[in-house]
Amino acid sequence: MTLLVLPLLESIPEAAAEHMTGGEWLEVGLPQLIGFAVSFGVVASFWAEHHRLFEHVRAYTRRLVGLNFAWMFTICFLQLPSAMVYSLPSTRSVIGLYIGTMTVSAVVLTLLVAHVHAHPEIQEPGHPLPRARVWANAAVAALFGLAFVIAMIAPQINYFALFVLFLSPVVERLSR
Amino acid sequence: MTLLVLPLLESIPEAAAEHMTGGEWLEVGLPQLIGFAVSFGVVASFWAEHHRLFEHVRAYTRRLVGLNFAWMFTICFLQLPSAMVYSLPSTRSVIGLYIGTMTVSAVVLTLLVAHVHAHPEIQEPGHPLPRARVWANAAVAALFGLAFVIAMIAPQINYFALFVLFLSPVVERLSR
Amino acid sequence: MTLLVLPLLESIPEAAAEHMTGGEWLEVGLPQLIGFAVSFGVVASFWAEHHRLFEHVRAYTRRLVGLNFAWMFTICFLQLPSAMVYSLPSTRSVIGLYIGTMTVSAVVLTLLVAHVHAHPEIQEPGHPLPRARVWANAAVAALFGLAFVIAMIAPQINYFALFVLFLSPVVERLSR
Amino acid sequence: MTLLVLPLLESIPEAAAEHMTGGEWLEVGLPQLIGFAVSFGVVASFWAEHHRLFEHVRAYTRRLVGLNFAWMFTICFLQLPSAMVYSLPSTRSVIGLYIGTMTVSAVVLTLLVAHVHAHPEIQEPGHPLPRARVWANAAVAALFGLAFVIAMIAPQINYFALFVLFLSPVVERLSR
Repeated sequence: MTLLVLPLLESIPEAAAEHMTGGEWLEVGLPQLIGFAVSFGVVASFWAEHHRLFEHVRAYTRRLVGLNFAWMFTICFLQLPSAMVYSLPSTRSVIGLYIGTMTVSAVVLTLLVAHVHAHPEIQEPGHPLPRARVWANAAVAALFGLAFVIAMIAPQINYFALFVLFLSPVVERLSR
Repeated sequence: MTLLVLPLLESIPEAAAEHMTGGEWLEVGLPQLIGFAVSFGVVASFWAEHHRLFEHVRAYTRRLVGLNFAWMFTICFLQLPSAMVYSLPSTRSVIGLYIGTMTVSAVVLTLLVAHVHAHPEIQEPGHPLPRARVWANAAVAALFGLAFVIAMIAPQINYFALFVLFLSPVVERLSR
Repeated sequence: MTLLVLPLLESIPEAAAEHMTGGEWLEVGLPQLIGFAVSFGVVASFWAEHHRLFEHVRAYTRRLVGLNFAWMFTICFLQLPSAMVYSLPSTRSVIGLYIGTMTVSAVVLTLLVAHVHAHPEIQEPGHPLPRARVWANAAVAALFGLAFVIAMIAPQINYFALFVLFLSPVVERLSR
Repeated sequence: MTLLVLPLLESIPEAAAEHMTGGEWLEVGLPQLIGFAVSFGVVASFWAEHHRLFEHVRAYTRRLVGLNFAWMFTICFLQLPSAMVYSLPSTRSVIGLYIGTMTVSAVVLTLLVAHVHAHPEIQEPGHPLPRARVWANAAVAALFGLAFVIAMIAPQINYFALFVLFLSPVVERLSR
């Protein structure tokens, strides 16, 4: 997660080489800082949900290990489109890869939660995974999918398409 | 925490490209090395306090998770102004962002401690969080705020404004 | 494991400097992305096996600590040939170092598993390490060796030589 | 620990820019690879000893936390002279900083072990820290000090001065 800050970190020695002051760097880098905050928020909430899931798990199936690696791959890969959003012009392919990776990550996380829910034998006894967690994750994945569609239709909206995620508490309540 | 050393680490191949010797690099980089030691000390003491707090916690509230992510964001973000302090001229905006981020981090940590203190139901039974920890954290946050004010009034003092932190044992004792 | 993405991450600011769009970067970088996915998959499955081994271990021998460091060195070192596969022309020495390092890592992991199997006194009582894990690891190491031989005979096959690893479930079944 | 590989990792895209093949990179980089292996071995054995120490610890003193941070600082800082050894000409200041940092790290680790040994009340009951661990660590620190003196007298020996560390099992036996 700390690696998300790397592309910004690396731009500082470059700014030094161009004799920029800190104030100028901040002005130039503001949209990148917002992008970093957005990526950090998304990855942090994914990790929180993942952590919450594994509090219910006491044993592994082969499928669980596979899905978990697939999910970790999406999180690790997400750093690439994050860096592209910071550095490259916001074309449809950049923003599509960015929100698309998040959508895939949310879908795989939903599959992980659904897999654990469907296998009570690997759950902590006395601390079962409620069905509502599956629906909540599916709702979040659907909102990422919606953000992806919005960004494809109007790429100039950029990562602001992710603001539909603020609907997630509403959708979560409806899905109960 | 290990990432704090990165901007210094990256300056070494550059020094190699300019055919500097190790002694020359040390001479040029001394203020940066001091800056790294300062950042490392601040982040290390934040982590120690954070670690100490979570030894009292046995369950999570939604607010606790949110505050914890906000705190982790400040720690992760702190690497940017740290790198700016190493590389860019020490203008008011650079030193302000540096000490300002530390101040925000100390304030959020105080809020975390206060939140846990106010919710005995999420504390480890038999190992409650004493009220004195809230005051000690508030005192540290106030000293960071003081360092920020000093640095804004006299930016040429640079990160030496942080030396008011050495007062923290005194303030902590007074606040008991 | 997250460091595997670094060489790709660093190519993005370079692409920005050359005024490439995200789509162009993806086109140029596709083979590197596949290489990253391959490295990630290999390292992830090594870690999974390593993690599974240490669930059986409750104490350490001096030999175990030594073998474990040797194994960690191979995993850490693997990042270098991975980055070479991403960036340098696929000569025999590059692809040989890449698959060769993986082979050494698989061999050391097999030695680790065999060492734990041969020392019941360091195993978790009630959760012994079955002999089949030793054979399964030896089979995987043999397949890496086979991939290495294929890559040495025909370097133009590149990391696709690793596709013999898909035989591992077959070999694992035969070795029981 | 994985960061030790970074300076080598970063030299690969540079090699690509200069149209080097993997074989040429290996030839040029061989002394750096040996340096990396040396640093990795030293840091790994420090970590192993540190890990072994904390298996005896069940509570913290203020002094323990302080010494532990000082030790972590030396380990984190060690990356800088490591990178200098890889990249810069091996002058007395480079090799002195490299082996000097290791010596300080070994001394601080000895102080940590001695502190825990002197405070039975923070040790795991039924798993006390034997006095021999203090002597073993002091012996290793003394050998690092010897390597430092050798390197200062004859800097052209470079990190090979560290080979006196191979005496540590001998010294450890004598110190019992």
